[in-house]
Amino acid sequence: MPTESKGLSRRGLLGLAGAGVVGAGVGIGADRAVMASAATGDPAAAASYPFYGAHQSGITTAAQNRLHFASYDVSGSSRAELIGLLTDWTSAAARMTAGRAVGEGATEGPYDAPPDDTGEALDLPTSGLTITFGFGPSLFDDRFGLSSRRPAALVDLPHFSGDALEESLVGGDLCIQACSDDPQVAVHAIRNLSRIAFGRASIRWSQLGFGRTSSTTRAQVTPRNLFGFKDGTANVRAEDGAIVDDHIWVPAGDGAEWMTGGSYLVSRKIRMTIETWDRAALREQERVVGRTKSQGAPRSGGTEFTEPDFAAEQDGEPAIDAHSHVRLAHPTQNDGAVLLRRGYNFVDGNDDLGRLNAGLFFIAFQRDPRTQFVPIQRKLAGNDAMNEYLRHVGSGIFAVPPGAREGSFVGAALFS
Amino acid sequence: MPTESKGLSRRGLLGLAGAGVVGAGVGIGADRAVMASAATGDPAAAASYPFYGAHQSGITTAAQNRLHFASYDVSGSSRAELIGLLTDWTSAAARMTAGRAVGEGATEGPYDAPPDDTGEALDLPTSGLTITFGFGPSLFDDRFGLSSRRPAALVDLPHFSGDALEESLVGGDLCIQACSDDPQVAVHAIRNLSRIAFGRASIRWSQLGFGRTSSTTRAQVTPRNLFGFKDGTANVRAEDGAIVDDHIWVPAGDGAEWMTGGSYLVSRKIRMTIETWDRAALREQERVVGRTKSQGAPRSGGTEFTEPDFAAEQDGEPAIDAHSHVRLAHPTQNDGAVLLRRGYNFVDGNDDLGRLNAGLFFIAFQRDPRTQFVPIQRKLAGNDAMNEYLRHVGSGIFAVPPGAREGSFVGAALFS
Repeated sequence: MPTESKGLSRRGLLGLAGAGVVGAGVGIGADRAVMASAATGDPAAAASYPFYGAHQSGITTAAQNRLHFASYDVSGSSRAELIGLLTDWTSAAARMTAGRAVGEGATEGPYDAPPDDTGEALDLPTSGLTITFGFGPSLFDDRFGLSSRRPAALVDLPHFSGDALEESLVGGDLCIQACSDDPQVAVHAIRNLSRIAFGRASIRWSQLGFGRTSSTTRAQVTPRNLFGFKDGTANVRAEDGAIVDDHIWVPAGDGAEWMTGGSYLVSRKIRMTIETWDRAALREQERVVGRTKSQGAPRSGGTEFTEPDFAAEQDGEPAIDAHSHVRLAHPTQNDGAVLLRRGYNFVDGNDDLGRLNAGLFFIAFQRDPRTQFVPIQRKLAGNDAMNEYLRHVGSGIFAVPPGAREGSFVGAALFS
Repeated sequence: MPTESKGLSRRGLLGLAGAGVVGAGVGIGADRAVMASAATGDPAAAASYPFYGAHQSGITTAAQNRLHFASYDVSGSSRAELIGLLTDWTSAAARMTAGRAVGEGATEGPYDAPPDDTGEALDLPTSGLTITFGFGPSLFDDRFGLSSRRPAALVDLPHFSGDALEESLVGGDLCIQACSDDPQVAVHAIRNLSRIAFGRASIRWSQLGFGRTSSTTRAQVTPRNLFGFKDGTANVRAEDGAIVDDHIWVPAGDGAEWMTGGSYLVSRKIRMTIETWDRAALREQERVVGRTKSQGAPRSGGTEFTEPDFAAEQDGEPAIDAHSHVRLAHPTQNDGAVLLRRGYNFVDGNDDLGRLNAGLFFIAFQRDPRTQFVPIQRKLAGNDAMNEYLRHVGSGIFAVPPGAREGSFVGAALFS
């Protein structure tokens, strides 16, 4: 009886404290994450990040392995109700990221009401869960009296060459990014936050991601995307102090004061035509990427973290192709513009022809999309050799406010 | 440079041995799984199961955490081509489950041909990958000269009360179940096997599962399904020697000799109407399941692994409702029929109303569906209180042949 011998989880204990209870055999409560980590022997399972703070977690946090992302439409037009939703979301997010169940009643009672928490993460460690909230451009229309507060940096993304966006995968008033090393913990977060929003906001589109495609700390090994190449070798990392401060966080005096300490999230659902890619020669694949497949080294030589030498030649040709992804996306080719990328591989089943619906759910954080994502993507959309194997089908841009203070709610400064 | 210091993976080494190579800085090759496990500190990452053997792996194997399952239609009608496909699949599966890349050329060359392996699992540990092959009823039509070899136990599943099957999610000539503790490793397996099948078979339907809902060994903690309840408490486990032999593996003399040592797989894609479930009182949820939500104990008392007492009463009513899932599915209510369940939680995005497309991808193994899955499901379909919250939308049945012998291919006895 392996699940019986560990005492009752913190969730269980809170439930017992809350209301009349059915269960019996109550042991001494222990922290859920620590307990579960001890049981599984996996140190990552115990990881836990604070919800409250100067910045929201889930940006420079070491990228977790799994993602559930959701974009929401707000149903009503009441400013008070929107504030109520954000308050409820904040409270639930703070509990879940601390390894606790949603609501004081937890799952044990009261017996004649629906449980506060849906329960599927009840025995699971926190697994590094972060929950990150964002506000889309449409939130700043005239419904909530926020139109004068829209940050200039929260642009409507322009049409990019080759865009094949599907309306049902674009936009949204609000977004939630839930990341965890256990997908069930991330799914539990989105499900419960969606449930809390019932009647106030509903999911517009959502995305599961099974594998991270970026490292956001130096300690993380560079992962591979579904092209089979290492991705994010040159990504901004949490340790890059001045770069993070200059390019990721919104500073005071940057236009919208309520965004100070926040960041801007751009998401792009990018389908890969992997069957076509898989028939391309290794030479072509490396030309397109500009790096070697085995090691991720620039085609100009060296190892993974060697800086690409765009002037290098090989057999009289540029060693790194003029249209290669690494060249076109590189900061030196974009007036120094960088992004903190935090994307995920996805597979959404298959199409009628038996091809996997697979690709990259791109997420990037930045201080100002006007000088970062937009010009970089303009350059890529027009010139990237990789476009032959890609199709952008979904898109979102969200203002991610700074972290909430305990006792307040996420985005509070927007409403003051 | 964390990825540089560990030497070249076994995959890389094989690639180097195979052909002219671009990479440099070659270290001493080491086993991929062991190497990666050392890097991550996660012992589960190193787990590796043999592909060849008396039985296929992925049945009594300790249920891994993640799933990618695919059903295939065979394109042609050539018996030789079908044998060729199974031979190629066997070879690739044996390599991948051993932590090796597909094909001798691996990903480093030859440079002017597509890589043999798509590469996204190149740096990942084996993570307990198992690949399990099955043959659907339609394989035994007149295309391949197999009609006389169809086992009587490989029935066409009958219509069950309440079935809401979608044609595109039903059936298939062949199936592959890939399970791993790393979803990218499972996805890599299905992707590469699908690629190998190009022109010979194509995916009919496929399913990712992010969380196991059964334990198949006594050492595993019972997981929770998306109803938030522990699932599979009474499941058959690998340690149940006689029960496994009597109820899971096909014995000699059971009708189709080529299936001796095999098993029958039934899959059901079961959508849960989780929004409705989440609005049900805890009392109703526990009535429907017949167990407590917190601990998974039978409503008749005790703890998780206490046997349910179906005669017990509480306030003059049966403690375990007459229509509860645990009662209707229990072996004592089904002439002793049992299943080895090996299902997974899934979320496939959301619908137009913003509800998560979520549920359980049910997988069960058994010696004979005629006396196991079919009568159990008949009883459940007609009476289970849980039906109010379920919709069966996909279905499959497959004969899973015994394990392949080294030098042969999976299912070889069917063709002899």
